[in-house]
Amino acid sequence: MSKSELVVTPVSQCAAAPLMREPLSARSAAELAAAFKALADPARLRVLSAIASRAGGEACVCDVSEGIDLSQPTISHHLKVLREAGLLTSERRASWVYYRVVPDALQRLSAVLAVESGPEVTA
Amino acid sequence: MSKSELVVTPVSQCAAAPLMREPLSARSAAELAAAFKALADPARLRVLSAIASRAGGEACVCDVSEGIDLSQPTISHHLKVLREAGLLTSERRASWVYYRVVPDALQRLSAVLAVESGPEVTA
Repeated sequence: MSKSELVVTPVSQCAAAPLMREPLSARSAAELAAAFKALADPARLRVLSAIASRAGGEACVCDVSEGIDLSQPTISHHLKVLREAGLLTSERRASWVYYRVVPDALQRLSAVLAVESGPEVTA
Repeated sequence: MSKSELVVTPVSQCAAAPLMREPLSARSAAELAAAFKALADPARLRVLSAIASRAGGEACVCDVSEGIDLSQPTISHHLKVLREAGLLTSERRASWVYYRVVPDALQRLSAVLAVESGPEVTA
C-alpha cells in the first residue's frame, strides 16, 4: 500500500489497540508513526513537556523559551510540527498565540504502548 | 549541549516522569527521542506489533513476514533498528534468531505519555 492511499486521521481519533494485544493495521500504523515522528526529536519533546507540565496547561512561545535554550523561531518551528501532528492546539489571544496539549492524543499513544498483564498460566 | 556530551542509556532504564508532570531534562529527552524515532515508521510499528502480540511473545523474521507484505531483508533491517533502540531483544536458537519485546521499554514510553488527572479545583 502506498502512503498516498492512506488518509491519516488525527492521532487523538486513532482507534488502535495496544501493540501487545493485536497486530496493528496499516492505517493505524501510519497514524501512530506520524505522531511518533513528531516526538522523535529531543528539543521537540522538551517543548511539548514545557507546555504540558505548565500550571494551567498552556503556554506561549515566550513562556517556553524561558526554560529551554533555543531561539524563539526554532521553538516556533517545533510548535508548528507538534500542532500539525495533532499533539497541540493553538489559540491566538491579543498579540500572542497560546498552545495547549491535546490530552486525548497523548493518552492514545500511551495506551498503544501500554503493557498489559498476560493471561494467567494454569498448569 | 551537543549530542556528543549525552550518554544515551536504554529507554528501559529512562527515569523520566510523565511529560505532563514536569519538564523533561535534556538527557531524558535524548533517550526518549531515540526510542520514538524507532517507532516513527509505519512498517517498523507493524513489525513490533506483530512480535508483541504473538502468542508466547516471540517471533523470528519468518513469523513476522507471514503477516506483513515486506521482504525478509526489509523486516530484518527494521528488527535491527528496534533492537538497537532497546525495544526488542534477540536470541539465536539453531538457525533462527528469535525476537522479543522489552516490556519495560514500552511501559516507560507509555508512562511518559500518560495523562494524569489534574489537581481538584477548589473554589
